[in-house]
Amino acid sequence: MRCFTQSDLNSLDALYRINLINGLSGFKSANLIGTVAADGNENVAIFSSVIHLGSDPPILGFIHRPITAGGNTYENIKQTGFYTINHLSTEIMEEGHHTSANYDRDVSEFEMTNLKSEYLNDFKAPFVAHAPVKIGMKYLEEYVIKPNETILMVGEIISVYIEDTLLESDGFINLSNGNIVAVNGPDGYSLTKLEQRYPLQYPKPK
Amino acid sequence: MRCFTQSDLNSLDALYRINLINGLSGFKSANLIGTVAADGNENVAIFSSVIHLGSDPPILGFIHRPITAGGNTYENIKQTGFYTINHLSTEIMEEGHHTSANYDRDVSEFEMTNLKSEYLNDFKAPFVAHAPVKIGMKYLEEYVIKPNETILMVGEIISVYIEDTLLESDGFINLSNGNIVAVNGPDGYSLTKLEQRYPLQYPKPK
Repeated sequence: MRCFTQSDLNSLDALYRINLINGLSGFKSANLIGTVAADGNENVAIFSSVIHLGSDPPILGFIHRPITAGGNTYENIKQTGFYTINHLSTEIMEEGHHTSANYDRDVSEFEMTNLKSEYLNDFKAPFVAHAPVKIGMKYLEEYVIKPNETILMVGEIISVYIEDTLLESDGFINLSNGNIVAVNGPDGYSLTKLEQRYPLQYPKPK
Repeated sequence: MRCFTQSDLNSLDALYRINLINGLSGFKSANLIGTVAADGNENVAIFSSVIHLGSDPPILGFIHRPITAGGNTYENIKQTGFYTINHLSTEIMEEGHHTSANYDRDVSEFEMTNLKSEYLNDFKAPFVAHAPVKIGMKYLEEYVIKPNETILMVGEIISVYIEDTLLESDGFINLSNGNIVAVNGPDGYSLTKLEQRYPLQYPKPK
């Protein structure tokens, strides 16, 4: 095995370091977060840091870069209190990746890419058309991670839309059936195949 | 598409709710966290919530269940200050899943499953043999997520071990080459195939 000591890690060049460290957490989720500013200007941006925090109450988190680094997503959520999380499938993968470009603040990624916004059941933030899973979220709170000033944004699930072919009879969402991708490192997108479900969430001791 | 309103979500039965909500974040990482108590008793447990927080400093987070629900992982980390994160491959997938069973506090999952602990370069916590990626972690801090009292544990990467076949020349870790799995919902394990890398982390606007 290749070994990196702390000293090795500290002396890596910047791009190598980003590639390496970004891969160390394992596979990541691929989501487009849709928001709208108080003035009506829409925003959509790709995130690979959405995490499950709990099912009752149903809450999700995601990591936002430091406020000092900018970001319409954070500002729009604070202005309106709502956002959407949309799953990235192969169909919208390349367009989704392009939302990470540094557009000017007043430019909507919905206009600069082929992604289409859609409004469902009067929810106040835009969903992304063609996403196989779409979630309406209400902002709850945030935590600033001190070592690097990233922000854990916490929100409650308000509404859910799922393609029928993904939803199994016991509530399991078969993500592979929607060609939903997993993220590998900073720039890799992987297709998946469900290999195994084990019968119980918390199996009995052997 | 199937739609769930907030009212629908609130009236789901418990297992359906767990399956559904656990799938909504998208694919999750599959990791075994290794720890040892001050008295030398080892522990290893599966987590699907390890997330990348930043590459400089190199820090990772993971979500631990509320302290009131128990958990040797949290206690051992607080006692020793160190832990390991090990990637789950198909080779150790079933054994890894079994670590989520409710063993008694004084029982080591290393003894109750076929997972083997190993100590590398005097690091104070046990790694998991046969894991294709192993990371030595130093505890930094924690944040209690108020809505459900789960805990975001934040640590710094101290050492890294990677199978040679996974590591590409630019530092990218090809997780699929190690048969590393992604987690789908509470109990699904997926195999992956790297589909596409895009040339830049932050692509230029179109």
